[in-house]
Amino acid sequence: MLLLGHIVQALAADFQAELAGPADLPIHALAPLETAGPGELSFLSHPKYQSKLAVSRAGCVIVSPAMQTAALSRGPAIIVNDPYLYFARVTQFWKRRHGSRLPPGIHPTAFVDTQAQLDPTASVGAFAVIEAGAFVGAGVCVGAHSVVGQGAFIGANTTLAARVTVASGCRIGQRGLFHPGVVIGADGFGFAPDAGRWEKIEQLGSVRIGDDVEMGANTCVDRGALGDTLIGDGVKLDNLVQIGHNVQVGAHTAMAGCVGVAGSARIGERCSIGGGAIILGHLSLADGVHVSAASVVTRSITQPGLYTGLFPIDDNASWEKNAATLKQLHGLRDRLKRLEGRLPPTQHQNP
Amino acid sequence: MLLLGHIVQALAADFQAELAGPADLPIHALAPLETAGPGELSFLSHPKYQSKLAVSRAGCVIVSPAMQTAALSRGPAIIVNDPYLYFARVTQFWKRRHGSRLPPGIHPTAFVDTQAQLDPTASVGAFAVIEAGAFVGAGVCVGAHSVVGQGAFIGANTTLAARVTVASGCRIGQRGLFHPGVVIGADGFGFAPDAGRWEKIEQLGSVRIGDDVEMGANTCVDRGALGDTLIGDGVKLDNLVQIGHNVQVGAHTAMAGCVGVAGSARIGERCSIGGGAIILGHLSLADGVHVSAASVVTRSITQPGLYTGLFPIDDNASWEKNAATLKQLHGLRDRLKRLEGRLPPTQHQNP
Amino acid sequence: MLLLGHIVQALAADFQAELAGPADLPIHALAPLETAGPGELSFLSHPKYQSKLAVSRAGCVIVSPAMQTAALSRGPAIIVNDPYLYFARVTQFWKRRHGSRLPPGIHPTAFVDTQAQLDPTASVGAFAVIEAGAFVGAGVCVGAHSVVGQGAFIGANTTLAARVTVASGCRIGQRGLFHPGVVIGADGFGFAPDAGRWEKIEQLGSVRIGDDVEMGANTCVDRGALGDTLIGDGVKLDNLVQIGHNVQVGAHTAMAGCVGVAGSARIGERCSIGGGAIILGHLSLADGVHVSAASVVTRSITQPGLYTGLFPIDDNASWEKNAATLKQLHGLRDRLKRLEGRLPPTQHQNP
Repeated sequence: MLLLGHIVQALAADFQAELAGPADLPIHALAPLETAGPGELSFLSHPKYQSKLAVSRAGCVIVSPAMQTAALSRGPAIIVNDPYLYFARVTQFWKRRHGSRLPPGIHPTAFVDTQAQLDPTASVGAFAVIEAGAFVGAGVCVGAHSVVGQGAFIGANTTLAARVTVASGCRIGQRGLFHPGVVIGADGFGFAPDAGRWEKIEQLGSVRIGDDVEMGANTCVDRGALGDTLIGDGVKLDNLVQIGHNVQVGAHTAMAGCVGVAGSARIGERCSIGGGAIILGHLSLADGVHVSAASVVTRSITQPGLYTGLFPIDDNASWEKNAATLKQLHGLRDRLKRLEGRLPPTQHQNP
Repeated sequence: MLLLGHIVQALAADFQAELAGPADLPIHALAPLETAGPGELSFLSHPKYQSKLAVSRAGCVIVSPAMQTAALSRGPAIIVNDPYLYFARVTQFWKRRHGSRLPPGIHPTAFVDTQAQLDPTASVGAFAVIEAGAFVGAGVCVGAHSVVGQGAFIGANTTLAARVTVASGCRIGQRGLFHPGVVIGADGFGFAPDAGRWEKIEQLGSVRIGDDVEMGANTCVDRGALGDTLIGDGVKLDNLVQIGHNVQVGAHTAMAGCVGVAGSARIGERCSIGGGAIILGHLSLADGVHVSAASVVTRSITQPGLYTGLFPIDDNASWEKNAATLKQLHGLRDRLKRLEGRLPPTQHQNP
Repeated sequence: MLLLGHIVQALAADFQAELAGPADLPIHALAPLETAGPGELSFLSHPKYQSKLAVSRAGCVIVSPAMQTAALSRGPAIIVNDPYLYFARVTQFWKRRHGSRLPPGIHPTAFVDTQAQLDPTASVGAFAVIEAGAFVGAGVCVGAHSVVGQGAFIGANTTLAARVTVASGCRIGQRGLFHPGVVIGADGFGFAPDAGRWEKIEQLGSVRIGDDVEMGANTCVDRGALGDTLIGDGVKLDNLVQIGHNVQVGAHTAMAGCVGVAGSARIGERCSIGGGAIILGHLSLADGVHVSAASVVTRSITQPGLYTGLFPIDDNASWEKNAATLKQLHGLRDRLKRLEGRLPPTQHQNP
């Protein structure tokens, strides 16, 4: 539980927010407008949801100045320019107050090699392994069963949740957050053909990850073949994402779940890649490219914008008919062309 | 090895099955019709496979009454109304008799916090971690390297295989089965944009999972942002499935491998989602919706039925021609329309 | 660091390579042509990259005889018939010289059941678990947190990286390499319907994996329902690949990241499956079938060749128009047909 005034106070250094309501209102939880009750704090991120505001039972609502009148007509409100961003910071404050984190120090069951360098303010969870030559910075949290390989580097205040693997020589920046099952630095997929079989190309590069990066559960980033795989500052990867060897992901790019990026692709800054999209290897995406979910990028994209390629879903019977026709599409085009050729051109053709 | 009569006896309480064959026939294994030998028990799930029945060398075959004559003309048979369901129960009986499970008790290498509540009939495997405030019910099996986080709840007779992570505060019902690498309760993917970078929205919700749920290897279910992610009773998820934050999956829905469900999607009961399908966020699927493999659900579906959307595979040269034409399809439609406009309407047009 | 002559010498038994340059040139790293500096060894895999050769600052370049003149005009070179294969072998030599591996023996924190059979030359990492009845062959490396289940078999010189799970009874051949998070032998996805709910079909089969197999991070291979799931010699699977129960993958077939293969599919030898492709169950692919990335195989393929099926990506506005028209495609075909019927056949129609 936190008092409403306490929350506003905590964020006062970063936001010009006005509290129109009782500072001593106890807030027991944060909740969406639809479900929030009297002891809960909610927010209105976009004017299009205004109808939900009027009927919300929330104890207090974070709104923009444009929504101030509507909000106050129903009860307490916090008025601020970017309610969604403000709400994000409230969740962080809430987590700091209510969450728990590992205390500094090494769990008695963990294994830390004598040749590892571990900041005394770092915490190492149960059965975690820190190998020789690894560096673990100040305030780092290494979760239970996580493995920091030989010579790997974990920057200050980064958190590895339970069961994260950072392979030898890989580097992670500061304030990162890596969820369970993440694998950093497995071998890239590289083989030379040799008379019908595959000859391993040892992956001698590494992975370098910037600051403020978050990666979701079971996401994988492979080490480079020769050079390194590079993940820029502020990159956010959702769960089950695959990043191939020598890929470069520009700063503040976000990828939703199940995305696959093949080797040596270069993705710009502030891109967004929708869930399940596939990006082929050796391509470049400019800064500010947005790829729709489940789309397949088969060529470089040089201009920012939104790009899409997926077969629209339909009832199965309709899909079957259209899909069957699609396999004759080129022929249909030829037939259409032929028909056009057989009709004499009109004098005043429509554009 | 089990005697045929012993098997029929074991299932007699649940099925009206007739054994037409020697009760003392030793059964050494269960096998498909094609490969089954004299000491093996097989089944015919569907009349369309009848041709395999005649030539099968199986020691005994489970068939429906309609197949009784055909089955008996070749040898011993078990006649029962639903042979496939009967077979499923035989596999369960077989596993109980031949499989091994961890004995109750805590492996000497496991770490169980003194503040955890552990039923004395539960078993905890090597290097497993049970954190403070966690509850582990009767008959639960926590596999090697599994982590049950702070305050998490594992219902009676649920099995966590090796290396499953259940993050803090998440709840799992009874009789569940979670395969290696499953991650329950990693953070959902939520960020507020802030001048070109992403501000973390802490995920303060949890995951609640019903009874009789099974999840495959490396499948992930994220915790909710504010409310909880909900998985209904009897839900079956295959390997490498991604369930985003605040998703609701209705009871007895099944999803094949590599499916991705984006945040806040609501999926009905008794749905089936084919492998590799993607379901976008904030959508609703009615009860009884079936989505074909690799299809992308981009809008809510309100009627039960089968829905599909995928580009039909073809030899690459044909695909290239049709795909190139597809990018002009809207223009082709306009040209067709124009042609139609230039031909005078016929008196007796075909429908 | 290695001397150039030392490298050529090490591979002399397997390649007829000519060193045109100083044998005592110190090589500090291997690098691509674009970035290689004076102390680095590079290679030209294909004549089409010849323009990069001329401007490369590499200390030495591996080239084919056809490129010999061009290479020598810029500096030292190794001339050999297959530069890419030669380069692959150089990476292996480099890794052997510079990499580190676990020393033989059992890490003091590991748990090896007294009923397990462990070759004295094997190494077992921190917190690894070897269960009763397991066999671990000569030179095997079991990484930290890996689990070798009851009765599982790991052939000589195979490496399990950190956190690999090999479930009970599964068999892996020699010289394999399995990256972190791999799960071998989780249950296949098998259920019999029973009045709106799902009845578990216990998965009584196993997984058998040949020699020289590599699997990427978080890849899963399920155990068979009755028979075994079979992975042939020399198969290479990238990260996050899903192989369903009773699948057969022929020798030397390669699959890129995020591929899903549904149950009982049979894939031939020397196939390649592009990233994100989905192969439906119970299909057969002939030897030498190549499936493009993100394509969906919905029928058996009996002829070798390249097969593709994906919606071409486009700017979103164009995609929207074409996708909308696609849902009317079958109707457009009918309209075209009708138009054709209304024009009298021409005497000399164009082909």
